Amino acid sequence: MDISVYFPIWGKLDSNQQDLLSSNTKKLHFEKGDLIHTGADCMGLLLVISGQLRAYTVSEEGREITMYRLFERDMCLFSASCMIHSIQFDITVSAEKNSDVFLISAEIYRKVMESSAPLAMFTNEVMASRFSDVMWLIDQIMWKSFDKRLAEFLIDESNIEGTNILKITQEEIGNHTGNPREVVTRMLKYFQNEGMVRLSRGSVEITDIKKLSAVISK
Amino acid sequence: MDISVYFPIWGKLDSNQQDLLSSNTKKLHFEKGDLIHTGADCMGLLLVISGQLRAYTVSEEGREITMYRLFERDMCLFSASCMIHSIQFDITVSAEKNSDVFLISAEIYRKVMESSAPLAMFTNEVMASRFSDVMWLIDQIMWKSFDKRLAEFLIDESNIEGTNILKITQEEIGNHTGNPREVVTRMLKYFQNEGMVRLSRGSVEITDIKKLSAVISK
Repeated sequence: MDISVYFPIWGKLDSNQQDLLSSNTKKLHFEKGDLIHTGADCMGLLLVISGQLRAYTVSEEGREITMYRLFERDMCLFSASCMIHSIQFDITVSAEKNSDVFLISAEIYRKVMESSAPLAMFTNEVMASRFSDVMWLIDQIMWKSFDKRLAEFLIDESNIEGTNILKITQEEIGNHTGNPREVVTRMLKYFQNEGMVRLSRGSVEITDIKKLSAVISK
Repeated sequence: MDISVYFPIWGKLDSNQQDLLSSNTKKLHFEKGDLIHTGADCMGLLLVISGQLRAYTVSEEGREITMYRLFERDMCLFSASCMIHSIQFDITVSAEKNSDVFLISAEIYRKVMESSAPLAMFTNEVMASRFSDVMWLIDQIMWKSFDKRLAEFLIDESNIEGTNILKITQEEIGNHTGNPREVVTRMLKYFQNEGMVRLSRGSVEITDIKKLSAVISK
């Protein structure tokens, strides 16, 4: 399990740069539910080997909304916010599944970037990709009613997990979508009455994907 | 009026790179209200010489919300979205004041970035700075009630313009904050009843800045 296999532009780094990065990278394991990174702590860059991470923000009152997910070979820059001065916000990262990740030193990564245009360009691409996620989110929360957002969330989850039976609590759905649990419960019950889902303790089963999809485009 | 004076890391480029950039840069003038960039058009990078630009998104129904403002020496990357493949969103840019800007070729900028780590690093900083603006915006729209957001918007505008009498319509405030005009009108009337602002056609005067500030922290 070598970082060279997982790091997209490895071949564009010279051997000195490769040595620097790999000798300043640790492999870490997290269990599902582990809090990996929080606040302004500059722990380093996270590169996902396997599993699934969730990046989210937390309000002063403790409410959450998911910014984006990180899957295999995805990289999180914002757990290394000291690397780029203009990152003036905090993000929290936790493990949604048991995950193996590379943790790359922020200081070393920055140092290599200073002499490697390909690494700095790659970093631009990673940030732009996250920026696109966040712009999509703004579009959702500004202009889409909650029924559409919830339908889209459930279908996305079903695609990620490859099953119609989602093991997720209503509180967790609230944390992903930035809503209080009561709001989630009300809408899920409406979906259930319409025959689109079946609710039970700690799970939501999609029973009519066609009808649920129609909510999004209605 | 030379780009070398306005471009932050000019001294870190070699003379060949400087020549490439300056010979592929045009100076443009826009009048207040002009639409500068829209959709996925890859017009190039905008570097503000003087004036003020506004970057915003527009919903399918034509509603708007301001993402960030660009002032003197600020640079807009997203008017050159072809430059970074992972930019998967559109932004609209218009002139809020009469503005002079440099328009830098996206193709040439990318070409220089490919051989210049300092330029790619600078681009990272610019994007991170806009990312911070957008994360602030999400925090606002998710967790702050509209009275607080409106009070904060009016005080920010007053600071930008250096006056308590803001020449702005209620529709424009709606477009900045992502609200229908009626919602803005209702809240402004409430502020007026409380003695914090005085409304007249096309303007909002802040009459009690202390009380208005207290709305934000209440």
